[in-house]
Amino acid sequence: MALTAKRLRAAILAGTLAFVAAPVRAADEAEVKDFLLDNGLELVVIPDHRAPIVTHMVWYKIGSADEPPGKSGIAHFFEHLMFKATTNHAAGEFDRAVSDIGGSNNAFTSYDYTAFHETVPPSALEQMMGFEADRMRNLILTDDVIKTERDVILEERRSRIDSNPQAVLEEEVSATLWQNQPYRIPVIGWMQEMKQLNRPDAKAFYDSYYRPNNAVVVVVGDVDPDAVKAMAERTFGKVARGPDLRPRIRPVEPEQNTKRTVTLTDARVSVPSFSTQWVVPSYHTARDGEAEALDLLAEILGGGNRSRLYQQLVVKQGIAADAGAYFQGTMLDATNFTVYGSPRGDAKLADVEAAVDAEIVRIAKEGVTDDELERAKNRYVRSMIFARDKQDDMANIYGSTLATGGNVKDVQEWPDRIRKVTADQVKAVATRYLVLDHSTTGYLLPQQQAGN
Amino acid sequence: MALTAKRLRAAILAGTLAFVAAPVRAADEAEVKDFLLDNGLELVVIPDHRAPIVTHMVWYKIGSADEPPGKSGIAHFFEHLMFKATTNHAAGEFDRAVSDIGGSNNAFTSYDYTAFHETVPPSALEQMMGFEADRMRNLILTDDVIKTERDVILEERRSRIDSNPQAVLEEEVSATLWQNQPYRIPVIGWMQEMKQLNRPDAKAFYDSYYRPNNAVVVVVGDVDPDAVKAMAERTFGKVARGPDLRPRIRPVEPEQNTKRTVTLTDARVSVPSFSTQWVVPSYHTARDGEAEALDLLAEILGGGNRSRLYQQLVVKQGIAADAGAYFQGTMLDATNFTVYGSPRGDAKLADVEAAVDAEIVRIAKEGVTDDELERAKNRYVRSMIFARDKQDDMANIYGSTLATGGNVKDVQEWPDRIRKVTADQVKAVATRYLVLDHSTTGYLLPQQQAGN
Repeated sequence: MALTAKRLRAAILAGTLAFVAAPVRAADEAEVKDFLLDNGLELVVIPDHRAPIVTHMVWYKIGSADEPPGKSGIAHFFEHLMFKATTNHAAGEFDRAVSDIGGSNNAFTSYDYTAFHETVPPSALEQMMGFEADRMRNLILTDDVIKTERDVILEERRSRIDSNPQAVLEEEVSATLWQNQPYRIPVIGWMQEMKQLNRPDAKAFYDSYYRPNNAVVVVVGDVDPDAVKAMAERTFGKVARGPDLRPRIRPVEPEQNTKRTVTLTDARVSVPSFSTQWVVPSYHTARDGEAEALDLLAEILGGGNRSRLYQQLVVKQGIAADAGAYFQGTMLDATNFTVYGSPRGDAKLADVEAAVDAEIVRIAKEGVTDDELERAKNRYVRSMIFARDKQDDMANIYGSTLATGGNVKDVQEWPDRIRKVTADQVKAVATRYLVLDHSTTGYLLPQQQAGN
Repeated sequence: MALTAKRLRAAILAGTLAFVAAPVRAADEAEVKDFLLDNGLELVVIPDHRAPIVTHMVWYKIGSADEPPGKSGIAHFFEHLMFKATTNHAAGEFDRAVSDIGGSNNAFTSYDYTAFHETVPPSALEQMMGFEADRMRNLILTDDVIKTERDVILEERRSRIDSNPQAVLEEEVSATLWQNQPYRIPVIGWMQEMKQLNRPDAKAFYDSYYRPNNAVVVVVGDVDPDAVKAMAERTFGKVARGPDLRPRIRPVEPEQNTKRTVTLTDARVSVPSFSTQWVVPSYHTARDGEAEALDLLAEILGGGNRSRLYQQLVVKQGIAADAGAYFQGTMLDATNFTVYGSPRGDAKLADVEAAVDAEIVRIAKEGVTDDELERAKNRYVRSMIFARDKQDDMANIYGSTLATGGNVKDVQEWPDRIRKVTADQVKAVATRYLVLDHSTTGYLLPQQQAGN
């Protein structure tokens, strides 16, 4: 379907949103309302009266990392299947209803969640809730539906992964970095397993996870929280609670003891590049402010053009076309911290990597200055204001946090926790986690530069 | 317990036995008897009247690759638990009975099976069967037994893996080579998961897999097959059949697209070494004689001191202390083909690796000569005669084949299938599978040679 490209992109981006954007200002905290319906569905309402529009998101606490062994791709498969016919609506009816009122809708899948969302005028919110409540339980999963949509996801894999050297490399880097955790397995699935997904698999998955007690509904916009709650009760509230779900306890990583590399050489690559990743705690698994310190470490080391990597490699030395760092904090299990770079002009990839490594060694050894820490915190505050301006960012922050073991308070107190991080804490996480001998580096090389 | 070191060694070796040794001569084939008891237990009896001794092995078709996610180590845990008290015998009673009659016993665990065995005078065979039949179903699994024996396996992991850089590297190479298949997970288990193994886990595992319909009993020695069958019926035959087991269909590997490396640098390493591995079909997954061709490829390329790698690197160039190749053919799922080497004198590890790679490229490009193929086949024939001399090798060949999807005929016809392999077939598997850009290489480096 036409939406699939956009959907996959959203899936890939979802994990980084909390890092790019940031939560509401303290002044708005009291306005956020968190309800729990009798059937276990959680409803979070964030009033935003600047424009007559509302963003409605349904987050299911089921992602690719929850899939049964050998069934990779089934979580993302549902991102597609949920747009097919239900016992109450023909396939495409929901999409047409959204278009008819000038709204937009989409869906995305990540390791830890699957989300469906619409942006519409407030008058259409209850209708959207009705459609979402309907497809939560009433999908018609026939062999024919499965076969047709399976062909779509297979083609999606071919076009978005298999024909893209960067995507193939990223898959194998993940399969290398993660020795035990299911983040090793691609969200879209391994081809040989996707091909075998069938109706019994889909039915079992749907019946286990598409339940009100496994969902978080986030509504941001020009609405009144109590009125939204009443709408949710009239729609989602009619859906029967499902059996209790087992705690999301997944295999975790063993100790990291080696330096690993993954190299893909491909004639379609023109500019070589590399990325180095480490296993680090996420907001959900970290203790003692380590996740907040990792967010600031990523910002100082490589978060944009004020960062050390950009200033040193791109501006001063002029050897890199690009260089940076990021931390995927909003994950249920241990996550990754990544640095990356690519050369410019006559510079070699090895020179860029060496310069990035030198910055890693320096920040782990010497730490950061109070001044640059303060500036990094200020950049975060600015990003919060930016996020506040975008309704869908706000919805994403709440939804991704709530779907990965956090709560409303975690989102709201996050700015304060960021402000409390000290330079010593940033140095401590750099020293503890950014150990080059225990990292995984991916290299994307043009054919002629295989020996680089 | 004192046996654990020996047990783990056996576990690691088990997978390679079929490669080191080989099946019976055709002349003996008619003597092998294969029975199926009413409760689903398979019994294979191989008469060998040269000495008044018998080897009795019970193979369970359950190995570490069958473990539930997050429960790594539980298959090997049973290698230990099976020596504890049952409702009929105190802990240690079975071991003492074996010692009292001058016999020996042990057990081992691999990815695809767990086996228990005794070597005793024929007069004690039925007693051994009685003990084995008893512990197949009557183990007493208390919290206390679990806790005590869990401490033993944790200590076993510390002493045999964590304190041994070579073993740590091998673990992480496997976790890298296998992107999806459970051979990625160490047989002994990941420490953090072993620590959490508990009584409910153990009970569920025992009840699922320790059943006559999941076992193969192999008896080799100075016995009469029909008499052995009667004994088996009087002992194992009394154990009720368990619920049918699901087919052993596990996640399989995606396409290999990258070159990967894993490097461990450790002060305890004195001589550097490397090994390169590829994912290749096993006897169970291969088609068209590919596994037989891989066995001969390994023999010609690196099977002992007549092989190309040994002759070229150790004898002619004098740069290697050791170099060779092996193929782990007896596995249920896709398996690995491995080459390895370490330098001698002033030679660098990189020189040895380059020389090994050159032999890989040469054999893939030029194939093998009819003459060296004939000599490789003859070496196999000699190894068969050697295997025939060792009762326990014979039992291992039958047991490991039957526990990984093969049958008695597969074992018996194997020499003929080896004899039929052509030079073209050997070249074809070398070309198809030994692609350096799609391999995983492990490096073990001394501290001072980190930059090697």
